Amino acid sequence: MDKTGAKIAVIGGGTGSFTLLSQLKHYTKHLTALVNMADDGGSTGMLRDELGVLPPGDVRQCLVALSESERVRDLFNYRFEEGTFSGHAFGNLFLTALEKMTGNFASAVETASEVLNITGEVHPVTLDKVTLVMKQADGTVTEGEFKIGQSDFGASKHPEMALKPSTAQLNPDAEQAIMAADVVVIAPGNLYGSLAPALIVPGMSKVLNATKAKKVYVCNLVTKPGQTDGFGVADFAAEIERFGNFKLDYVLYNDDKPSKELLDTYAKEGEFGVEPDKKALEGAHYKAVGGHFVSGEPYAAAQDSDPIAQTRTLIRHDADAIAKELMRICFA
Amino acid sequence: MDKTGAKIAVIGGGTGSFTLLSQLKHYTKHLTALVNMADDGGSTGMLRDELGVLPPGDVRQCLVALSESERVRDLFNYRFEEGTFSGHAFGNLFLTALEKMTGNFASAVETASEVLNITGEVHPVTLDKVTLVMKQADGTVTEGEFKIGQSDFGASKHPEMALKPSTAQLNPDAEQAIMAADVVVIAPGNLYGSLAPALIVPGMSKVLNATKAKKVYVCNLVTKPGQTDGFGVADFAAEIERFGNFKLDYVLYNDDKPSKELLDTYAKEGEFGVEPDKKALEGAHYKAVGGHFVSGEPYAAAQDSDPIAQTRTLIRHDADAIAKELMRICFA
Repeated sequence: MDKTGAKIAVIGGGTGSFTLLSQLKHYTKHLTALVNMADDGGSTGMLRDELGVLPPGDVRQCLVALSESERVRDLFNYRFEEGTFSGHAFGNLFLTALEKMTGNFASAVETASEVLNITGEVHPVTLDKVTLVMKQADGTVTEGEFKIGQSDFGASKHPEMALKPSTAQLNPDAEQAIMAADVVVIAPGNLYGSLAPALIVPGMSKVLNATKAKKVYVCNLVTKPGQTDGFGVADFAAEIERFGNFKLDYVLYNDDKPSKELLDTYAKEGEFGVEPDKKALEGAHYKAVGGHFVSGEPYAAAQDSDPIAQTRTLIRHDADAIAKELMRICFA
Repeated sequence: MDKTGAKIAVIGGGTGSFTLLSQLKHYTKHLTALVNMADDGGSTGMLRDELGVLPPGDVRQCLVALSESERVRDLFNYRFEEGTFSGHAFGNLFLTALEKMTGNFASAVETASEVLNITGEVHPVTLDKVTLVMKQADGTVTEGEFKIGQSDFGASKHPEMALKPSTAQLNPDAEQAIMAADVVVIAPGNLYGSLAPALIVPGMSKVLNATKAKKVYVCNLVTKPGQTDGFGVADFAAEIERFGNFKLDYVLYNDDKPSKELLDTYAKEGEFGVEPDKKALEGAHYKAVGGHFVSGEPYAAAQDSDPIAQTRTLIRHDADAIAKELMRICFA
């Protein structure tokens, strides 16, 4: 199939964006990944702390997802296993060296895009150095994406999410991509750790409301213990809308049952399939589209050379099925 | 001027090769850099020690010299200035990550060649992990290129040079390049630290004797205190022939005087201009070609973003004048 001219912007970061972008690139040339910039864990966190750079990890994953150059793709995800560089993904060092050299993360991403020969574009949602902050109803304040990702707080209490400094601004390239898009996709991902920090960037809400693009959220497959326990599809979608202060046009959710075996494995970790709360979805202002969106392949066999991403979850979206659904929405 | 089809192989490593390759690439598409692999100082030495890889530093410099891609060239020479990575040239990490990933330094160099979009090819003289060993007449044994480079020994005593292990072999790609060349150039460089380890690789002598290429040595401009004090052009050439156990066809030497100011600066460091020992050169079996081979530009202004290379010496070859002389020899 020839690539179409459909313009799609994908907001997110991490594995959810990675798998979706990896498939979407087969259907369109005009793909833009807009990446959450609050990451502060692992190799990325060390580089931020030591060298004061912007977080390279999620940008790297999006670049790799869109790359046409297999060897360089593997190199970007390669992690040193020993010595001084142990744990660092090479692509993170690549972006870090370029940023230190040019003093400009956006131009670092541009050079990396050339070297990786990518389809489309990758832009950070903000070029400011931001820290994610969560404030719970009881006054507890938690700082840092990694720490928030590990916290128990109960999403049903709708914790307040913010970025520090509050003067952070939406990257103009991200704004342009959203304004020009036919469809803006909120990728599946950690609701508070990955999606909130992208959606709450000052300026994002205004652009999401101004664009003529259809706004589509691809809902997570499983809940996260201590956070989204008991959340249904409509609950996830409502939090997304709360973060970005905008209205979704479509929500894609899985209505296929994963195997009992897989569900049991998950249940042991306190994770459960996200239920399509049919009543809520029927009454919603957005169109809820169910589908067979669970991948039959176990994740280890999927296309991802990032060892950290591989350990995350076993139930995977069938990213190709979702990509096709998104293309249908583009041309609806 | 369009590039010619002349086939030139340049043996060396370090700054001498870098400056010569940077100019030669304007005149021919068929340029091969054959790189000394005994380097064990600085960033390269740390990577060898910590990760057990082949030394990336000189290969990196040759790749950068032949690169057509300015931004990536700057990136490859970029050195981290702080934190865990302090002192490491990014290109060294690039080659190291690729070698660790693929287990194959030759394929790492190939990928880097693509990314840097180079004219010609770069090949290590050997793919074995080698250590340079010097044995002086009094029995003193010094191990390691960096240590030998810092030693006082007196070149006139013709120390014995060897590689450990003695089973190291010439890289077949280097052999092919020498056999196919019209001209094989021994680049200027540290006689014992850079050129000896390239020329003494087992198998090199046989190929240098077997090839129909004209063999040209570009003589150093200044002597090195404690090592080549008092050496004239013919003395340098004789050591080169001793290392490689072959006969040179041409020796290019400078017969222009650098400014008194520059010479005085050098004399303070114990370095002196290499004198063309006219009598010895007239009686030699090779053709000695004098020329105005000193650059008028101070080195700091030259095209090299490697801060370590920049501190090395101030008197520079006029690499373009030498490149043109080499082209004349190609077509003689």
